[in-house]
Amino acid sequence: MGPEFKVTPWEVSGDIDYDILVERFGTSHIDESLKDRLAGYGEMHPLLRRNVFYSHRDLPWLLDRYDKGQSFFMYTGRGPSGHTHLGHLMPWIFAKHLQDLFGANIYFQLTDDEKFLFRQDLELSDTRSMAYENALDFLALGFDPEKTRIILDTECIHSLYPLALKVSKKITFSTAKAVFGFDNSTNIGSIFYTSIQAAPCYLESDREGKQVPCLIPCGIDQDPHFRVARDVAPGLGYPKPALIYNKMFPGLEGGDKMSSSNPDATIYTTDKPKTVKRKVGKAFTGGCVSADEQREKGGNPEICAIFKYNYFLFEDDDSKLDELTARCRSGDILCGECKAELSAKINTFLESHQAKREEAREFIDQVSFDGFRW
Amino acid sequence: MGPEFKVTPWEVSGDIDYDILVERFGTSHIDESLKDRLAGYGEMHPLLRRNVFYSHRDLPWLLDRYDKGQSFFMYTGRGPSGHTHLGHLMPWIFAKHLQDLFGANIYFQLTDDEKFLFRQDLELSDTRSMAYENALDFLALGFDPEKTRIILDTECIHSLYPLALKVSKKITFSTAKAVFGFDNSTNIGSIFYTSIQAAPCYLESDREGKQVPCLIPCGIDQDPHFRVARDVAPGLGYPKPALIYNKMFPGLEGGDKMSSSNPDATIYTTDKPKTVKRKVGKAFTGGCVSADEQREKGGNPEICAIFKYNYFLFEDDDSKLDELTARCRSGDILCGECKAELSAKINTFLESHQAKREEAREFIDQVSFDGFRW
Repeated sequence: MGPEFKVTPWEVSGDIDYDILVERFGTSHIDESLKDRLAGYGEMHPLLRRNVFYSHRDLPWLLDRYDKGQSFFMYTGRGPSGHTHLGHLMPWIFAKHLQDLFGANIYFQLTDDEKFLFRQDLELSDTRSMAYENALDFLALGFDPEKTRIILDTECIHSLYPLALKVSKKITFSTAKAVFGFDNSTNIGSIFYTSIQAAPCYLESDREGKQVPCLIPCGIDQDPHFRVARDVAPGLGYPKPALIYNKMFPGLEGGDKMSSSNPDATIYTTDKPKTVKRKVGKAFTGGCVSADEQREKGGNPEICAIFKYNYFLFEDDDSKLDELTARCRSGDILCGECKAELSAKINTFLESHQAKREEAREFIDQVSFDGFRW
Repeated sequence: MGPEFKVTPWEVSGDIDYDILVERFGTSHIDESLKDRLAGYGEMHPLLRRNVFYSHRDLPWLLDRYDKGQSFFMYTGRGPSGHTHLGHLMPWIFAKHLQDLFGANIYFQLTDDEKFLFRQDLELSDTRSMAYENALDFLALGFDPEKTRIILDTECIHSLYPLALKVSKKITFSTAKAVFGFDNSTNIGSIFYTSIQAAPCYLESDREGKQVPCLIPCGIDQDPHFRVARDVAPGLGYPKPALIYNKMFPGLEGGDKMSSSNPDATIYTTDKPKTVKRKVGKAFTGGCVSADEQREKGGNPEICAIFKYNYFLFEDDDSKLDELTARCRSGDILCGECKAELSAKINTFLESHQAKREEAREFIDQVSFDGFRW
């Protein structure tokens, strides 16, 4: 028995051991030589350097083809069950970096159908309006409008459905049960759904009538979907999608995954400066019970949510991060100061992001897949 | 244990006892008073008078509403796995009669997705091209183009999918298993599919934002789908669809259902006169082994495929049918003569039908649901 944690596309709980997860899922680690190879196409992205993107499937195969002149496209997405938080942005930030490096087309799938099917409390109108908000956040990150298309499942179903049908014909209920943990009480829409998430993997191969490789940057919790999508690909005459997986973005309460089920431990992209300050102020840290004690014994950055935020997204400079670590351990900086610094960084980021997300309203219809209009 | 026969949307086998089927499925018989009530809107159609349309769900409820001024729409369809045969035409002929009586809109759903999912040997391109052929046959029957729309699932999925999602969220795998006999080896597309067949039941209610009743004329083998569609309707805020069910159209080999799995016992709408003559010539009859014996003992119309064809579709005049019965029983008419007469009647019908189905090519795009083009 491994440690008690659960990672599925719909539930992440317990203390995740990411090495064990690689074994469980059968993915590969991104080792130092693969990191160096990726960095060879441009700069080494902090999320790669720090092993936040840490696992993959078939990435060397994809790069071998790219090196021989065969372009690939990318695909990532979002289940629009609520507002975007920082954890959602993280893989998109890396996807933007990959688009810059490789000039790849990217498709962003908003699974309004999925969230409707899996969430008893949501209607299609809810997931659709959330999808619009999420799409603004995606576009705010600066993807090339010429190479970027937004897929909203219910709007783009005419293109997705024939591919999804082909996938679904090759997956039995046994397989779906084993991979996703379904049982007899699962609704039949949820059972079918993985076919829709698989469809974009084959989109360019299908349209161009030749094998176009696909790279999917996303959280490792999505691996069950893509395991299935990879298994059926050869039988459909498409290449297996390659994947690059990130670890989950932590919650402010100290948990392994930022989650909308705990809004006070979650920074949304639409949060106001005061809200950010309040949430960060309540975060779980590695500090001591009193300031005096902390000055004497120092803090523990390893378990500190504030430190993790700096590590994942808000302090790209390794030497500054090392300095922060040392100051924390020595008791030189206390949690209050550290929180204030992080709040300021987050708010600086959000101020700019929120402006760009307003601008995205102006061109969002121009990047719709198949020309749908919001 | 009842008699050994099986009736599901995908398999009909054994000698069907239609009274037991009504009990099994929990539908109602169309009794004499309901027949009279229906005839009160116009003429008594032979298929009703002869109890070929023999069972229903909620038909009096639908008529009560109609009598109070509330119009309804109709919906029927076809799984496009091959060319149209006479058995497929039968419910459509009755549907055309109902459209004439009630002035109702009708939607004709071609389930190219279904046949792709349930048939290992068919591709989507196959089912789609068969759908076109089947649609020609439907339109050849003379439906009012202003009140008739053809739905091709993969083309019209943008309209069907949101409704199908709502249906699918309310059906568990347990239910699908119990109703359709699925098991763990069923593919997940097939499991989901009933949601797509349910969707048109709610189409006008959804579009008009009010409860618009729906009447579905079809073979009783389709009842499992509509049992499910009726169960979920109230929870979605739609009226339960009403149904009027026909018995299966017999095969020329003497079986209870004409089936493309036995093409020689099946008259296709595209068959040439010579082909019809050959197939009818080989039909199973109630005759004796020799002409002499039959002249002496007479034939048995009850088990005779030729007689059934006259009963179902090719001899509307009751007195002529009675006369034929008497002549058969007395040995006055032999099978050869009877077959020649039926062949002539079928060929007269097909000659006219084939001309109309050519004309339908000219306006088929004008009656597409949501304006799709073939």
